[in-house]
Order: sequence, then C-alpha cells, then structure tokens
Amino acid sequence: MEKQPARSTSRLDPYVDRYAARTAGMTASEIRALFAVASRPEVVSLAGGMPNISGLPLDVVGGAISDLVHEHGPVAMQYGSGQGVPELREQITDVMRLQGIEADAADVVVTVGSQQAVDLVTRIFCDPGDVVLCEAPSYVGALGVFRSYQADVVHVEMDSDGLIPEMLEQAITATKAAGRTIKFLYTIPNFHNPAGITLSAERRPRILEICRREGILILEDDPYGLLGFDSEPPRALRADSPDGVIYLGSFSKTFAPGFRVGWALAPASVREKLVLAQESATLCPPQFSQMAISAYLSNHDWEGQIKAFREMYRERRDAMIGALDDLMPAACQWNVPTGGFYVWLTLPPGINAKAMLPRAVTARVAYVPGTAFFADGYGTSSMRLSFCYPTPENIREGVRRLAGVIEAEMELHQTFGTDTASIPVIRTKDYDGPGTDVR
Amino acid sequence: MEKQPARSTSRLDPYVDRYAARTAGMTASEIRALFAVASRPEVVSLAGGMPNISGLPLDVVGGAISDLVHEHGPVAMQYGSGQGVPELREQITDVMRLQGIEADAADVVVTVGSQQAVDLVTRIFCDPGDVVLCEAPSYVGALGVFRSYQADVVHVEMDSDGLIPEMLEQAITATKAAGRTIKFLYTIPNFHNPAGITLSAERRPRILEICRREGILILEDDPYGLLGFDSEPPRALRADSPDGVIYLGSFSKTFAPGFRVGWALAPASVREKLVLAQESATLCPPQFSQMAISAYLSNHDWEGQIKAFREMYRERRDAMIGALDDLMPAACQWNVPTGGFYVWLTLPPGINAKAMLPRAVTARVAYVPGTAFFADGYGTSSMRLSFCYPTPENIREGVRRLAGVIEAEMELHQTFGTDTASIPVIRTKDYDGPGTDVR
Repeated sequence: MEKQPARSTSRLDPYVDRYAARTAGMTASEIRALFAVASRPEVVSLAGGMPNISGLPLDVVGGAISDLVHEHGPVAMQYGSGQGVPELREQITDVMRLQGIEADAADVVVTVGSQQAVDLVTRIFCDPGDVVLCEAPSYVGALGVFRSYQADVVHVEMDSDGLIPEMLEQAITATKAAGRTIKFLYTIPNFHNPAGITLSAERRPRILEICRREGILILEDDPYGLLGFDSEPPRALRADSPDGVIYLGSFSKTFAPGFRVGWALAPASVREKLVLAQESATLCPPQFSQMAISAYLSNHDWEGQIKAFREMYRERRDAMIGALDDLMPAACQWNVPTGGFYVWLTLPPGINAKAMLPRAVTARVAYVPGTAFFADGYGTSSMRLSFCYPTPENIREGVRRLAGVIEAEMELHQTFGTDTASIPVIRTKDYDGPGTDVR
Repeated sequence: MEKQPARSTSRLDPYVDRYAARTAGMTASEIRALFAVASRPEVVSLAGGMPNISGLPLDVVGGAISDLVHEHGPVAMQYGSGQGVPELREQITDVMRLQGIEADAADVVVTVGSQQAVDLVTRIFCDPGDVVLCEAPSYVGALGVFRSYQADVVHVEMDSDGLIPEMLEQAITATKAAGRTIKFLYTIPNFHNPAGITLSAERRPRILEICRREGILILEDDPYGLLGFDSEPPRALRADSPDGVIYLGSFSKTFAPGFRVGWALAPASVREKLVLAQESATLCPPQFSQMAISAYLSNHDWEGQIKAFREMYRERRDAMIGALDDLMPAACQWNVPTGGFYVWLTLPPGINAKAMLPRAVTARVAYVPGTAFFADGYGTSSMRLSFCYPTPENIREGVRRLAGVIEAEMELHQTFGTDTASIPVIRTKDYDGPGTDVR
C-alpha cells in the first residue's frame, strides 16, 4: 500500500457534498467567535454567561469528592443508569420544590447540562419543518439546537412582563393557518436569557391555559429560577401543569457548570423517550459528576450557597444598572433585571450593535449583539450585557468604555445621517404585530 | 385557573402522535432490559460490557482529583472549550501513538464517551435513508444510533480474520446499484464487540484501498485496541489513512467509564463540524472529568495500569475458554479472542438464543442474544459472552450453568424436532452471499 502522509493536509473539504442536510444549520455562533476575543485580559467582557464560582468552598467540594473516590470510587467511576443516579434524582426533586414543583424522581432524566436536555427534547419531537415557538429574543444555544434539527423558529413578542399572551395566541393562529405543525413553546420564564425579563405571575396561568387549549407542549427552561435578587423564587409553570410542561433545570448556575449536570422533568411517556434518547446519545450521563454533585448537596448548605450567589449577583446587577444610569447616553434604553445574569440594551435608532462590535473590542469592552438571539436577523439595534462574571469595578469600567463607543457612533450617525451598517431590519409575518417591544 | 394534580397521572401517552419520525427507531435494546436481571446477585452475568475497574489505585485517583479541586477548582468546575481541554487532547495524541497514529491535538474532539462520538458523526453525515456499512454482527449501541438517525444498516460478512474485503466490495456494489448513498463504513477492527475478532494485518490495507477507491469514509471505533493479550497493540487503520478515517477512542476501558470521556480524531474539515455539533449538543464536554483524567495520565503510570488490565482480562479470557472447552456441548462453536471483552458463541442448529434466555436466567446465568447485534433480525442462533466483569471462578460457574441450559434445549429439540422459537432467519439481499460466517 502506498505510504500516505501522517496527518491531514487537505485544504479543501473533501467531504463537502456528503454531510447531512442538517449541517447547513450548524454554523459558528456569534458568541463562539467572541470567546477568543473576550478572553484577552485587557478586555472587559460583558459578553459571556459564565457564572462566577469563585465563592464556592473548594475545601468542602474537594473533601466531598475525595471521600467519594475513597468510599464509592468503583461505583462513581463505573457506567451508570441512562436516566441518572437515583439518589441525585431524589435530590433534584428537593431543588425543584423551591419553585412549587411536586415531582417524582422517576420522572427526572439527568442530562449533560440542560443544553443536552434541549437537544434531546428536540430530537424526540422535531421533524424537519416543524415549528418551535420562542420568545423574541431567545437563548442562542436553544436556537442553534432547533436549527440543527431543521425546525423553524417562530418568535413571539415579549414586553416588560414577559411573553405576551395575546401575541402567543396570534402566533399560534397564524402558524396553524399556514398549515404548519407547532411542536412546542420554548420559554425561559425567569430572569430571561438574554432579555433579563421575568414572566409576571398574572400571565403564567394565561400562558398555560392557551397552550392547554391549543394542545401545545411547553418546554420551560429555568437555569436561573433560584437566582432572583428581591423575592422568593418564581413559581414554575410546571408546578401548575405536570402533563403540559417539560421542565429543564441545571446545576451550572447554582453550583458549577464544569460537571455538566442538568435535568429534564417530563410527563412519564415523554420521559421514557428521553431515557432512550440519552442512552443512544451517551449510554449514560457522567456518573462521577452526578455523584460529586450529590455528595455536595448532601454535605453542604447548598441553599445558603445559592443565597450567597444571589447577593453577589445582585451587587453586580446594581453595579451595572448604576453605571448605565450614570454613563450611558440618554437615547439608550435598558431594563432592570430582578435576577439572573443579563441586561438587554437597545441603542438609539440607526446604530447597529453588530457593526459596532469591532470598535467596542478595540475600546476593550465586549458584548453579544442582539442578532444572535433571533432566528431571523432581528435585533440589530440591541445587545446583551452580562453582569455575572466581572467584578463591580470592572463592570463600571466596561460600561464606561461602551458608553464612549456608543457616543462616538452617535456622532458619526448625526454627521453622516445613515445607518452604520447596511443590514436591514426585517421581520417575518409570523409574529409581526403590535405589542410593547423589549428590543 | 383550574387546579391540576401535582404529578402526571396519565396512563396513555397524550403525545403519541407528536413525536418525531426518528423516535420510531428508538426502542429499548435487549441489553437494556437485561441490566435489571443481570444485576441480581445470584445471577452470573456474562451479558454486560462493564470493565472491571477494581484494580484502579483509588488513593492515586482520589489524590489527583483532590489536588485538582484545590489547585485548579475554579477552572475545572467552569465551562470549557466545546472541543475539549487542550492539555488532555495532547495526552490523547500520546495514547493514540501506541497504535501508530501521528495526530495533531487540534484534530481531536473530546466527547461524552465514544458513544457520543458515534452519535455526533452520524448527526453530521446521515440523512434519513442513507446507508451505513457495518460488520455482521456489530456493536448494539452504534446500531441504535444509526437507527435513531433513520439511517439504514447494510451488514458485511466477517470471518476469523475480520471484515472480508470481497464481501465489502460486493456490499458497496450492490448498495450503489440500488441507488443508495453510503455515508461510511462503521468498523471495530480490534477485539470486536461482540464478535471478539481482530482484523488481520494483511487485510487492513485492502480495506483502506477499497474505501479510498469507492470514496467511502471509515469510522474506526477502537475502545479495546490497547487491551490485546498476546502482542503489541494492532496498528490503527487511521495510522495509514489520515484523510479517510475518523478514529474513535475512549478512556472507558483503559481507565474508567464513569467520567464519560472519549474522543474523535477527524480530518480537519470534519472536525470543525464535530465541534459545532458538540457545542449544540452539550455546549462542552464535562470539564471536570477531562481534567481529572488529564491529572491521572500526568501523575500515574497509566501504561502500567493498562498492562495490569490486560493481564487481568487475559486470565478471565482463559477462564472462559477453558470452561467452554471443558463444559460446552460439542455442537457449540466459539472463537478465542486475542483481546477485549467478548466471546461469540454459536448454538447447534435449531436452538434459539433469544427464546432460551428466560430459561438461562432461571438457571442464574445471563448473556446477550445475537439478534441484538444485527439490524435485521439475524443472529438468532448466537450469543455474546462477556468475560470482563465476573471473576474467573464465576465465569466457570456461569459457563457450567449455561452448558446445562443448552443441553436441556438440545434434548428438547431432539425430542420434538422443531426450532425452539418461531423467529425466521431472514437476510436482506444487500449482503446475502458466500463467505465464512462467524455466526
């Protein structure tokens, strides 16, 4: 046999015509490209969604894991159940009870972060061309999953009270009238990523009632539900609709993301399918990670730790809102989140957040342009600002730099009178309509 | 809003008409149903593929992980790269070098076990109706993945030297003539699961040459490559075809499965797509698991540990072959594996392994019926016997019980003269043909 070179040297992709159709929807996200930039030490990154886990008690965690290896090593390092470790699933029901959910551990499926839960739910429900309803804007990682399964996203308007019931009804009616099949409503009711908005208590039963009437399953993604600043955790949609909601939770923000442990709570019939999908995808979620988290939950005041996280994030939220109030041009608009990691900021007319980003990075501040959070190119005049990771001082410095960049853009715009980029703002007819717009 | 019950009480699946078409291919495997049975302590399980990790030095592993938490906790518990931890990817290239592979760490993608690598590769290549070529028999977990992506499996015959080149050519020709698109050849060249066979050195360049000529990508799944009993590790197919092979490796059998760390080594263009698929599926593989394995590889004589595993598994292979020689009816046939975990046993004509299983379990021994390893119902007269997990004494006892069950079946068969089950043996025309059959 002819000797071949030791490593790949092709510069063109020899497989270009062999990939599955779904790969057309798999493209590098705007957030991904930013990670490299934002990691440079001189840049204040208001872009990423990394939790600040420096407050975790490393001695407690290290001790719990060391004990785990010595006392249960052969189990913790072995294959486990495709559904997840039973003891951890019990503990997960305790966590969910804080948001009013009464659940059976038998209906919990452990996943590789709640990202994998979004993937598995989409896998079992969505054929190409099916429709998923999403808030406008919505989580970039979920939009990527829907795209990768060739599902089409129809966005539904939000206002400062969250998803607007009338707009949801209108979107359902229009989508059904177009002969399309809606598989589920994907929603982040609490401390929304990226909008920073929480669905009001008054609207929750209305959203549930609309979905029940229309026969639409709800996928409730709730990674931030326990990270409210001012009050008790909001009651989960799932708490009032066990058969109509798949609830997704995660330890990534309330403990640490590096273990990649999230979960789905689903009606029994759906749960059975999720377990089969999980076995096909990974055989089983990481046993060691699950037992490490279980040990942490058993041996530590995890609710106290979450309280400490909430206070830390509230201080950072206050730093960001204070800096925005003090430093931003009056023509910018933003909301004041009551929990979570994010502020949604809208620029004055004519300023394009995506086009401005390279200039912002030159000024040593980073954010995520709003277009990342829409399936259709909307969001050009908005951005997501994260206050989770930088210190309060750095948040203020980042906002100061950003304000300077925006002011310079506004001056340019006033001088030349044109948009700073040629990207047109176009919405699909699916969710065109009135309603207070958060963008 | 009307008060609803606190937990799901539906007995019928209200979502039955809403699932994606691919869920029709997601069914509980025969192995899965067996796990519950085989875990009963009185049963000698020759069914599962769990590695025996009792030989791992728990003090070394525990110490390495404890140090990891204290010295690098905030990094190990944080989100990481979608492609995997760079240092671990470098170490993975060292591992692969033992099988002749010279690779760049930039072309390695870490996965949640190599099961997830099979899933991600199938995701980026297979549209519904595409064909995957597989050995006959093949790994049950891979067959499940192909089914879940609605790909069709065409089996290719093996003999005691592994995949038969002439049969591969014939399968390719017949499949192409039928107007079907072949996306890749999935092969386990070393210490095959479930057949226990290793592809001969003489055939390897011939398989590579056929696939290069026909433009068929090879997916080389090699979890057992370093677990040979008698000689140096076989040279990987990838070692001689960097552009034509995606190589899958795993730490599940050479270290421990509970961390769920495997990998894919792929040509650069494919690797880029795999990273996007991984980000969509999980954001990133478990950072903590990866850094734990990296620490283990850095601080421990991992090659010495693999040598100890090889000796332990050789002893168990010897126990199984010795017991089969001593105790099995002469009409049974089996092979002598030179590595890995499995022996493939074929029953006398007329005895059905699947139908016999409940009687075997009653006699306190479990195995996996051969049908699990075929996409088309073949394999009725065969079974997979695992020697990886039970002790040599238990292996002998398990074989003794199994021999008794088979003898009783043979007596029944001689008395009544019919097959013990009515499952017909049917092959599709795609791979019907001559060739020494391992079943």
